[in-house]
Amino acid sequence: MSLIIDCHGHYTTAPKALETWRQRQIAGIADASLMPWVSDLKISDDELRESIEQNQLRLMKERGSDLTIFSPRASFMAHHIGDFQVSSTWAAICNELCFRVAQLFPDHFIPAAMLPQSPGVDPATCIPELVKCVEQFGNVGINLNPDPSGGHWTSKPLSDRSWYPIYEKMVEYDIPAMIHVSTSCNDCFHTTGAHYLNADTTAFMQCLTSDLFGDFPTLKFIIPHGGGAVPYHWGRFRGLAQEMKKPLLKDHLLKNIFFDTCVYHQPGIDLLTKVIPVENILFASEMIGAVRGIDPETGYYYDDTKRYIEASTIVVGDDRHKIYEGNARRVFPRLDTALQAKEL
Amino acid sequence: MSLIIDCHGHYTTAPKALETWRQRQIAGIADASLMPWVSDLKISDDELRESIEQNQLRLMKERGSDLTIFSPRASFMAHHIGDFQVSSTWAAICNELCFRVAQLFPDHFIPAAMLPQSPGVDPATCIPELVKCVEQFGNVGINLNPDPSGGHWTSKPLSDRSWYPIYEKMVEYDIPAMIHVSTSCNDCFHTTGAHYLNADTTAFMQCLTSDLFGDFPTLKFIIPHGGGAVPYHWGRFRGLAQEMKKPLLKDHLLKNIFFDTCVYHQPGIDLLTKVIPVENILFASEMIGAVRGIDPETGYYYDDTKRYIEASTIVVGDDRHKIYEGNARRVFPRLDTALQAKEL
Repeated sequence: MSLIIDCHGHYTTAPKALETWRQRQIAGIADASLMPWVSDLKISDDELRESIEQNQLRLMKERGSDLTIFSPRASFMAHHIGDFQVSSTWAAICNELCFRVAQLFPDHFIPAAMLPQSPGVDPATCIPELVKCVEQFGNVGINLNPDPSGGHWTSKPLSDRSWYPIYEKMVEYDIPAMIHVSTSCNDCFHTTGAHYLNADTTAFMQCLTSDLFGDFPTLKFIIPHGGGAVPYHWGRFRGLAQEMKKPLLKDHLLKNIFFDTCVYHQPGIDLLTKVIPVENILFASEMIGAVRGIDPETGYYYDDTKRYIEASTIVVGDDRHKIYEGNARRVFPRLDTALQAKEL
Repeated sequence: MSLIIDCHGHYTTAPKALETWRQRQIAGIADASLMPWVSDLKISDDELRESIEQNQLRLMKERGSDLTIFSPRASFMAHHIGDFQVSSTWAAICNELCFRVAQLFPDHFIPAAMLPQSPGVDPATCIPELVKCVEQFGNVGINLNPDPSGGHWTSKPLSDRSWYPIYEKMVEYDIPAMIHVSTSCNDCFHTTGAHYLNADTTAFMQCLTSDLFGDFPTLKFIIPHGGGAVPYHWGRFRGLAQEMKKPLLKDHLLKNIFFDTCVYHQPGIDLLTKVIPVENILFASEMIGAVRGIDPETGYYYDDTKRYIEASTIVVGDDRHKIYEGNARRVFPRLDTALQAKEL
C-alpha cells in the first residue's frame, strides 16, 4: 500500500485576513503611511485549522491522498509587486502560514517555500529566507519563479549564473525546486491558462539549450502542470536536442527534471505516462487550484488526478507506487527523512 | 483517394541572396546610406525552382503529399526589426517570392501571406499588403503574429479591437489566419522550442477568455504546432471555460479554431486526434522547419507527420480524408475554389 503524496499543493484557501493584509501592503507601496506591520496580521490556529479541514484536507480524505507538499498560493506570490523588501516580508508571512499548517496537520502537510524574488534583484538575496525555511521550518523544497516580472520575462534564463547561488544552496540542502510562475500582469497571458503552461515549456527549453545540469549534476527541478507542452511535443524536443548535438534527453535532462501529474483529463495523463519514464513522474493535483469544477464528461472533479492514475492501463503495478510515493521520496530527500523519522 | 494538403509550410530554403538582402536592410536601419533597393534583390526562376525541387518538393514526393499552403519563413518575419516601412518592404519581398514559387509549381504550392506587422503600429496598416496578396497573388490565407515584438508580448491580446480591421478583411475575403509568431529576441524563449508553442497556447486562451467569435462568427484561426499545449491540457481548458461560465469549448471556440498536425511523434498525434474533433484538425508538417532530423526511435523524419496519421488507429476511414483534404478545403475556401477551377 503506497502513501499517496501530492507534491503540488498551494495554500489557496488561507483566511481572508491574509488577502486583506496584502492589500494594505500594496497600498503601503504608494503611501508609506499605510504600510501595515507584520504583527497586524492575526490568524489563529483555529482559523488555519478550519481553512484546511473544510477544504484541502476534506478533499484529500475524499480522494484518498495522504500527504501534500504544501506551498504558498502561487498566484499570490506576485513577485512583480513592490521591491525586494515588500517581497521579503510577504514571503516570510506566507511561508510561516504553511509551516503552521504543517505543524497543525503533521501527518498531512509538509511545507515547501516561496522565495522573496523581485524583478531585477539578484536571486542570491533569496537565500536567507530559503535557509530559514529549510533549517527552522522543515521545508523540503522550494518554488522558484523563472519570471518574477509576472509575464514580461525580464530575468535571465534559468541557466544564467545569476541563479547559481540558489542552486548551490539547493544542492547543499538536497532540496528540489518546482519551477512555478505567479500571476501574469501582462494582458496577453491568462495566468493559469497560458502563463503557467508557457513557463513550464520555457523552463524546460532553457535547461535543454544549456549545460546547467553539467554544472549541477544533482540539481533537481520539478516542472509542474504535467510539464506544460513538453510531453505532448516530446518528439519535437528530442529532435531539437538532436539538432543542437545535445545528448539524448534521458541523459541530458531526465536525471534532473521531473514532471507532476497536474493534467486534468485521462488522455493527457495517458500521454504523459506513455512518453515520460515513470521515474520522472510525481503524483500531484494542485488541489485546490486553477480548475475547481466537476467535469461533466466524467462526473468527477477535473483535478482529481488520482482517478486518472487509477484508471490508467499504462501505469500498473510497482510503477504506480513510484508515481505516488517512491519518486517523491527520491526527489525530496528531506521528505523521505521526515517520513522515516515517523517510521513511514 | 485524398489530395494530401499540407496547410503549414514555410519557404525556409530561399536562395541565400534573400538573407543577404535582409542583412543589408537591417544594416540600413542604423545607417540609411546602406539601405538596399528592392531591385537589388535578384533571384531568378531557376534559382527558385532549384531551391524548391531539391528541398520541399523532393520531400513532398518522397512522403506523398500533394499540395502545400506556402508562406514566408516564419522565423525570418522578425517583425520586431525596424519600423513599419522596414516590415512592409520585407513582407512584400517575401510574399512575392512565395507567389512566384506557386506560379512555378501551381500543382504543388499555393501561397499564404505574411503581414508587415510592426510593434506598436496599428494592425490596420497591414491591410494593403493583405489585399494585394489575396487579389493579385491568389493567397488563400495569412499568417498573423500575435506578438510582433518577438517575445516581449507588448501588443494587445487578439481579442482587442485594434485587431478588428484585419478580421473584417479576413471575413470579407473568407480567408483564415494561422496564428504564428516569429523569432524570439527575448533570451528567455527559445524560438521554436518555447516561443512558438507558448504563442499557440496564449492565442487559444485569448480566444477562450473573450467573445471574439461572437463578434466574428465566421472568423477562422488555425493554431499551429498541434495547438501548443492545448490538446494535452484539454481538460484544464474545458475546466477553465466552465469556471468562467463560457459555453462548452466545442460551441465557444471549435467553430472557429483549428489545429494542425505539426506534432512530431506518434503519441502526440494520437492525443491530438483523440481529444480534438476530427473536423478541427488539418494535416501539416511545417516541413522543412524546426526539426529536420531523423528520429532514431523510428528511423524516419520527425516531421514526416503523414506517417503518424497513416499509423493511427484512431483516425480511420473518412476521418483521414477530412484531415488530409476535406477540412483544408472548408477552412481555406479560396483554396477549394482554386482546386475546383482545376477540376480537383
